[in-house]
Amino acid sequence: MLNLGIIGCGYWGPNLVRNFMEAGECRVKTVCDLNPQRLVFIKGKYPLLTTTRHTDEILADRSIDAVAIATPVSTHFQIAQKALQSGKHVMVEKPLTASSRQADELMELAHKYKKILMVDHTFIYTAAVRKMKELIGAGELGEIYYFDSVRVNLGIFQHDVNVMWDLAPHDLSIMDYLLDKTPRSVTAMGLSHLGNNIEDIAYITINYADNLIAHFHVNWLAPAKIRLIQIGGSDKMLVYDDMENSDKLKVYNQGIDTPKNAEDGYKIRVQYRAGNMYVPKLEQTEALLVECRHFLDCIRSGQKPLSDGEAGLRVVKILEAAEESLKNQGRLVKICT
Amino acid sequence: MLNLGIIGCGYWGPNLVRNFMEAGECRVKTVCDLNPQRLVFIKGKYPLLTTTRHTDEILADRSIDAVAIATPVSTHFQIAQKALQSGKHVMVEKPLTASSRQADELMELAHKYKKILMVDHTFIYTAAVRKMKELIGAGELGEIYYFDSVRVNLGIFQHDVNVMWDLAPHDLSIMDYLLDKTPRSVTAMGLSHLGNNIEDIAYITINYADNLIAHFHVNWLAPAKIRLIQIGGSDKMLVYDDMENSDKLKVYNQGIDTPKNAEDGYKIRVQYRAGNMYVPKLEQTEALLVECRHFLDCIRSGQKPLSDGEAGLRVVKILEAAEESLKNQGRLVKICT
Amino acid sequence: MLNLGIIGCGYWGPNLVRNFMEAGECRVKTVCDLNPQRLVFIKGKYPLLTTTRHTDEILADRSIDAVAIATPVSTHFQIAQKALQSGKHVMVEKPLTASSRQADELMELAHKYKKILMVDHTFIYTAAVRKMKELIGAGELGEIYYFDSVRVNLGIFQHDVNVMWDLAPHDLSIMDYLLDKTPRSVTAMGLSHLGNNIEDIAYITINYADNLIAHFHVNWLAPAKIRLIQIGGSDKMLVYDDMENSDKLKVYNQGIDTPKNAEDGYKIRVQYRAGNMYVPKLEQTEALLVECRHFLDCIRSGQKPLSDGEAGLRVVKILEAAEESLKNQGRLVKICT
Amino acid sequence: MLNLGIIGCGYWGPNLVRNFMEAGECRVKTVCDLNPQRLVFIKGKYPLLTTTRHTDEILADRSIDAVAIATPVSTHFQIAQKALQSGKHVMVEKPLTASSRQADELMELAHKYKKILMVDHTFIYTAAVRKMKELIGAGELGEIYYFDSVRVNLGIFQHDVNVMWDLAPHDLSIMDYLLDKTPRSVTAMGLSHLGNNIEDIAYITINYADNLIAHFHVNWLAPAKIRLIQIGGSDKMLVYDDMENSDKLKVYNQGIDTPKNAEDGYKIRVQYRAGNMYVPKLEQTEALLVECRHFLDCIRSGQKPLSDGEAGLRVVKILEAAEESLKNQGRLVKICT
Repeated sequence: MLNLGIIGCGYWGPNLVRNFMEAGECRVKTVCDLNPQRLVFIKGKYPLLTTTRHTDEILADRSIDAVAIATPVSTHFQIAQKALQSGKHVMVEKPLTASSRQADELMELAHKYKKILMVDHTFIYTAAVRKMKELIGAGELGEIYYFDSVRVNLGIFQHDVNVMWDLAPHDLSIMDYLLDKTPRSVTAMGLSHLGNNIEDIAYITINYADNLIAHFHVNWLAPAKIRLIQIGGSDKMLVYDDMENSDKLKVYNQGIDTPKNAEDGYKIRVQYRAGNMYVPKLEQTEALLVECRHFLDCIRSGQKPLSDGEAGLRVVKILEAAEESLKNQGRLVKICT
Repeated sequence: MLNLGIIGCGYWGPNLVRNFMEAGECRVKTVCDLNPQRLVFIKGKYPLLTTTRHTDEILADRSIDAVAIATPVSTHFQIAQKALQSGKHVMVEKPLTASSRQADELMELAHKYKKILMVDHTFIYTAAVRKMKELIGAGELGEIYYFDSVRVNLGIFQHDVNVMWDLAPHDLSIMDYLLDKTPRSVTAMGLSHLGNNIEDIAYITINYADNLIAHFHVNWLAPAKIRLIQIGGSDKMLVYDDMENSDKLKVYNQGIDTPKNAEDGYKIRVQYRAGNMYVPKLEQTEALLVECRHFLDCIRSGQKPLSDGEAGLRVVKILEAAEESLKNQGRLVKICT
Repeated sequence: MLNLGIIGCGYWGPNLVRNFMEAGECRVKTVCDLNPQRLVFIKGKYPLLTTTRHTDEILADRSIDAVAIATPVSTHFQIAQKALQSGKHVMVEKPLTASSRQADELMELAHKYKKILMVDHTFIYTAAVRKMKELIGAGELGEIYYFDSVRVNLGIFQHDVNVMWDLAPHDLSIMDYLLDKTPRSVTAMGLSHLGNNIEDIAYITINYADNLIAHFHVNWLAPAKIRLIQIGGSDKMLVYDDMENSDKLKVYNQGIDTPKNAEDGYKIRVQYRAGNMYVPKLEQTEALLVECRHFLDCIRSGQKPLSDGEAGLRVVKILEAAEESLKNQGRLVKICT
Repeated sequence: MLNLGIIGCGYWGPNLVRNFMEAGECRVKTVCDLNPQRLVFIKGKYPLLTTTRHTDEILADRSIDAVAIATPVSTHFQIAQKALQSGKHVMVEKPLTASSRQADELMELAHKYKKILMVDHTFIYTAAVRKMKELIGAGELGEIYYFDSVRVNLGIFQHDVNVMWDLAPHDLSIMDYLLDKTPRSVTAMGLSHLGNNIEDIAYITINYADNLIAHFHVNWLAPAKIRLIQIGGSDKMLVYDDMENSDKLKVYNQGIDTPKNAEDGYKIRVQYRAGNMYVPKLEQTEALLVECRHFLDCIRSGQKPLSDGEAGLRVVKILEAAEESLKNQGRLVKICT
């Protein structure tokens, strides 16, 4: 049975504890946080846990096989680095690191020490995204025209990263997983309104070699929560509304045909094939549980995680380029590959 | 009683005919279209109308006081120019013209001939937008942080302009009316997928001197119709969902306060004032009817229309700059004022 | 070409005028209303119409082949009777008559004079209901378990009939059309709140010989408009939400299986076959136009209308029984067949 | 610190465990269930718990002050009776008992042994229902005209009670709490479709002395989950949609005025005062946590719970009468008080 340490017990850490608890075939041994109140809180829920304020205590514990890191982004690299060097398998909260250089280094370490390095791209483990992957993988959408995402709400602010580094990793990881293509360049625009130089609203556009565009709206200042992804293809289109209780994923059977001949009127109608819309039944699994089990499976089998260091790196590269564009009034920035 | 000629009877023209009919105190005398079938169609509905295939017939008719022009964008300038020169008051379908130079010229002509020049920015005459103007005008939103608009659907393609010139004038005119501020620069990205070099999806970002950003997503290839405008302010926020039957406009009473002191946790929560959301009752008037009556009122009284040539020009200037940005991979383009 | 007279030009009459105008192959010759303002109104829209305040003028006009009657319910019988006796085909606004005796008599007259008698059950001509009929007709729902309808809103009150006679005919006619079964008994409860002894809220339950129940909630005092029909079957289920713009009809592929063996837990889950939900594409036709054309077709061909006198009678019989139950505190009332 | 025993650990029991754990100032000491798997399950989550298959073990434990009973309805009485006799405070899952006689007896026992008897009417502890109570208590709705409830979904069946006893207690307890009036009579209709004589769909109508009607639709065979309560008043109206994520409660400011004078048209419009709709901000508390704390407070202070035995009895009396009506084809059944 694998022993786990959870480093960071703020907003997300308790979810990791709970899901690894439910995953079975493993034991959450120790939870670490700088804030003693959070340790009292988690101990109250799970009395058999050990708690500590010192990461090193977990890393030094040779009975612990793997750690999950849910600390502020700026600390991901240092903790993950040490953990790999201590011979632990590592799962890191998104985004993997604060820079692509750091991500590269973690990947090298994981390779060197033959440990699993996984990034917590939770959304790719949701039933909705897996169903979308299945449909896109089967070619049902035809040529993909655009990927459009809106993720906005009012509420939690981060103080070490802006809204882009906080919210966009969700959508960038979904896009990366679904499209499986290499982006070429990025532009991003954003603003900070609270006098702290941390952008609270941002728009990101990503260009591809193919006739494909991706766009992201992330916003901490929106009054109503929206989590909406639209993917347009030549044959079918998908609308994924994560705020819907039951009908999260809609598949539109209508595709676009280029009009074949000129028409004499003022307007032409695109000839789109008439079709139904359907809502595929999705499993009711909790994504994080699926992901935790996948992490454990990868440790046992040595297989590469779906959201491996490479996936984490690809998302960080886009964020880096977007950040550069953001700081330069939306200048087009190439994504190096 | 004023006599009117309607030039162009494609998709929008019949709406103009119907609403001027209902406006009262005027007579729709003649309708013009190049396509005889459209004339048969409109004559079938309104047998007392005269129809013609020749614009000049309307312009030469001295009993006609004013014309409404609902032809393709590329023809707006020439027809409006002739109409003003023939001594007619003119209402032009949005966008006013295909270039700011043309808009300038029409404004000069209107001034010279002392005729009303109005652009058909229908949405600013809706009850929802007028209510938003009232709220913003009263300062209820506080400092405005962002204006975000999504207008997407599947269906009608234009063949002389791209999706930006087709759909964005709606939202740009709403923004121009509500914010009443001068934009500084624009970036735009877009793509054409149907092999005709006409962009069917575009994203536009507009920068202001204040800490304000505006953004627009327009799309002819989206499977589900969305028409959503969000406006964030320091005190209140608005969400205008034009696809809602009854609750089109939502006013969120919660504002954002800058956090006053640092917090020790991983995350800080913005201190937002708790508050209710409310849905103001909106009049059930048809916007185009309100607008047609306003045009007639302006003709009679000589007052400046709400959507005058100046408003039309402002929108065209943004579209011009956005077009330049679009053709240059999203380069930042200044808006000359 | 058939000539038509429209009797009654209040709320519904103008819709009849407009749709018969668009139906083609017929001419709306004369419109009748007691209120001269309504005649001015309709003449303003359709200047080629003749108008009159006297029904007899239409009935005496031998060039008029058919009449559509959209007057208060209490007058339906007398006008339709005279019209049939004058040799006109007749289409009557729902409910067909104020009593089943009257409906019987109209059917006899229609038979005697060999004229078409049709009741305006508009909803059965909608694309959604026709699609539901197609699905049910093909047996896709399996055994039908229940028909549940809610039709509530705030707004128009009738002063000669209660909410049951006003709103329920829509849903009763849909049920009658879709289920094609003979109801056995009815109970109804309702209340009047405005001091006029006209019920503004009512609940109707209908029992069938099969293990099938139908239920209707009609209400003039509900703040938000709801028009929702749910039909449950052993194999599939339908939800028809008429307030939805695009996804009006939802087909749920999951059916119910009787649990085969006892379970030891406190609760058992019905074994329902997992399945998708889909939204069939519906034609965008206006139901009333389809219906008007059907009336004209029936006149020309002599075929029996879908909503013939028989259908009108069946709905009136249920209303009569429900009225009797309503006046007797919900006593079970048999429906005579 | 109070010690608690939880009797029954099926679907609802674990929620009681979790919320009493979070309530603070108490300890969940022992959990009882007949099914050993459920005990393994709960022990896995809360290792410090004691578990047992024998209710008597909890009742005999003198350190346990109170029990919460979440067993099948048919066992409520016997277990609660013994628990009171053993000197425990008792909280019973809804409905309180299977008959009003049993409820009476429990109340007497609670009185005799000076113990708290509370029924778990969870919904009256929700923020939405408490806000509704506040509005109604302040007289904001004016005279109340109707209470209409729909609670339907596909899924869990009970095998010892029908859908009425399973789902309606939620809505009956909300109604009882909000209206605070004594119902006079009930009618109910329902059907069983799965060959087990347990009704899976039912409609209940409740009559009051005032001009007030209440109606309930409960259904285990509906494909889409609906939980909707509408309350109409002469001044304001409420719509409570529990399936909404954010806008659960809508307050409509428009009331109904009786039309003062006759109108000459076919139709009259109710003169309703124009007004806005608003969505009050609701606290994000979990209702069951509020309720568990309330139970603990009542034990400590001796105060009467909001959902005391009396409230439980009132709901059971309605269910009994409804059951009698259901078995007699919807016959009107008086509710004895």
